[in-house]
Amino acid sequence: MFRYELIKKDKYTGARLGRIITDHGEIETPIFMPVGTQATVKSMNNRELEDIGAQIILGNTYHLYLRPGEDIMAKAGGLHRFMHWDKPILTDSGGFQVFSLGPMRKITEEGVHFVSHLDGSRHFMTPEKSIHMQNVIGADIIMCFDECAPADADYAYTKKSTAMTTRWAARCQAAHKRPDAQALFGIVQGGMFDDLRAKSAADLVAMDFPGYAIGGLSVGESHDKMYHMLDVTTPLLPENKPRYLMGVGSVDALIEGVIRGIDMFDCVLQTRIARNGTAMTSEGKKVIRNAVYQADFSPLDPACDCYVCRNHTRAYLRHLIKCKEILGARLLTYHNLYFTLKLMEKIREAIRNDAVLELRDSVFCQYGIEKIGVYENAGKSIG
Amino acid sequence: MFRYELIKKDKYTGARLGRIITDHGEIETPIFMPVGTQATVKSMNNRELEDIGAQIILGNTYHLYLRPGEDIMAKAGGLHRFMHWDKPILTDSGGFQVFSLGPMRKITEEGVHFVSHLDGSRHFMTPEKSIHMQNVIGADIIMCFDECAPADADYAYTKKSTAMTTRWAARCQAAHKRPDAQALFGIVQGGMFDDLRAKSAADLVAMDFPGYAIGGLSVGESHDKMYHMLDVTTPLLPENKPRYLMGVGSVDALIEGVIRGIDMFDCVLQTRIARNGTAMTSEGKKVIRNAVYQADFSPLDPACDCYVCRNHTRAYLRHLIKCKEILGARLLTYHNLYFTLKLMEKIREAIRNDAVLELRDSVFCQYGIEKIGVYENAGKSIG
Repeated sequence: MFRYELIKKDKYTGARLGRIITDHGEIETPIFMPVGTQATVKSMNNRELEDIGAQIILGNTYHLYLRPGEDIMAKAGGLHRFMHWDKPILTDSGGFQVFSLGPMRKITEEGVHFVSHLDGSRHFMTPEKSIHMQNVIGADIIMCFDECAPADADYAYTKKSTAMTTRWAARCQAAHKRPDAQALFGIVQGGMFDDLRAKSAADLVAMDFPGYAIGGLSVGESHDKMYHMLDVTTPLLPENKPRYLMGVGSVDALIEGVIRGIDMFDCVLQTRIARNGTAMTSEGKKVIRNAVYQADFSPLDPACDCYVCRNHTRAYLRHLIKCKEILGARLLTYHNLYFTLKLMEKIREAIRNDAVLELRDSVFCQYGIEKIGVYENAGKSIG
Repeated sequence: MFRYELIKKDKYTGARLGRIITDHGEIETPIFMPVGTQATVKSMNNRELEDIGAQIILGNTYHLYLRPGEDIMAKAGGLHRFMHWDKPILTDSGGFQVFSLGPMRKITEEGVHFVSHLDGSRHFMTPEKSIHMQNVIGADIIMCFDECAPADADYAYTKKSTAMTTRWAARCQAAHKRPDAQALFGIVQGGMFDDLRAKSAADLVAMDFPGYAIGGLSVGESHDKMYHMLDVTTPLLPENKPRYLMGVGSVDALIEGVIRGIDMFDCVLQTRIARNGTAMTSEGKKVIRNAVYQADFSPLDPACDCYVCRNHTRAYLRHLIKCKEILGARLLTYHNLYFTLKLMEKIREAIRNDAVLELRDSVFCQYGIEKIGVYENAGKSIG
């Protein structure tokens, strides 16, 4: 089962309040999805994910294909059972990871030859094999195998690549064995070219996927450019289906993305910077390993009511991070994810009250973000 | 406040059921104390420590002296507040760590010159400085600064060393500024020599410490030898004070130690082997990273009712450990500590029922431990 319900649109922007219904429960949108690359959201356990209000998490097909591999995943009965997570899961197709391998992969029309980053073993990934692996993993939402062209790719390359991604999308759709249990999303590509984005969107919309992702953004271009590509793309996507902006999760981009009609986000930012000792707070980023926090016995974020902010001080967190203690990574990860999920909750509440622009202003002001790509005509240009 | 109450003695062995009362709460004995070296029990948070029934944890003065250091610890108001742990804490004196530095330290009557393992900086630790740092840390139970001689030290060396440890104990007692709030334990040394152990015990008992530790065991000698040294030592310690066997925590040694009248244990074994992928279970040790567990979807320990055993499979734990995921270390640490604390609970229950020897037999049989140092005359030789 998969259904998207549009509950309410913001009066002044493209922001949408909605709901996705899956076999493993409902997801309120707009939503942020913590990334659980290798069948675990790094450093978190399932109980904590529920505590912080995670409604859906990601798995990475590339990583799960290599470890534990198809055989174990099949024997386990899929990823939900393997990691004992009963709420919704989304898997990417492995496309982005494979293309990130750079010289360790070779792209052909049939698929991608690549070398494992773990042991140097050779693999060949095709749209059909990606969908097969995703059928075995059994996530509620799965993704087409696409080529994510680099931000600086030229027009000719991007045009060819985008056309191939569309042909691969058709092969993914044909290969998908469990369309009733798993919703297969198409991925709009087209690089930084308006007309290629439009062509990609039109072709995929014609194929009638239950949801659409926008891929190939936040790959090195400016935020201005990214917001422009969203302005160009989301209006071309059907209103009655969810829209997922892949790999994007900074505070400004979450809000600007929502304003441009995005319903779903994922990003490793929250968990990665946590492990390096950086916290996302209502006062902006705090590099907690800095000496300035050595004897600072105030909470990480005085405006936050999470377990970490209620129980621990900046001085203690700094100590743990300096000592490379696992608990340091745990506590900052917990807080960063909580902070982000809470922000999404505030965004949903703001849409309910037609107050998304006010929320943006107050968050940006507190957080110290310049209004990059301020969306003055939001209410007009996005339906 | 510090008080030890002897509740009941086992009819057939030296085992004692008791209770320690501190300003931060009561501790049921015999007890196992998880080690929180750097103001954190590696990978665990405080909530989890409470979940598994930890009644007291350890801190390491050597590590806390280097990081975060005396100044931060003082400003934080002590370790309880620094790590936000409200239950009892015990700190060691730093002696064992300093002596473990080997060529990086030099012992004199006045104290020990050593080089930090972190940054090569030079330090001089004395009984007075150790006690001062422990007063700043503020643990409920603190330890005398002692020399832990190696297991293979000869008689002459050990005799000299033990005499110095006794002189240092007197200096520690004199330097202790907060005897009402923090109980200072003496540490019996004497290596593998019966008469030196007896002399050390007699000298320290005469100094009337509120509790006694037995140090310098489990440093390379056989378990038989260790049990013999306990047989020799514990009968010489006062019945109305707690006895702490330092750095010992294997399943067999916990039970054999209790049988010989030990009330308190600590060990890094549980947490260290967890991070390396080894679990303590009712069927003995399981090296969960082994390929045999790849597709084993049964619980880690079918006889265990902890969070990990109720929620996860061996195959999943193996996957996490193989992927070096933090959650793997977390889950195995949680289980190993839970397993050990549960064992201590069973031991206390067995003492209540005069059934310690039966418990030992059934645990050793299940666990596959040979009865090393079987304690046939337990009821006779230990009071």
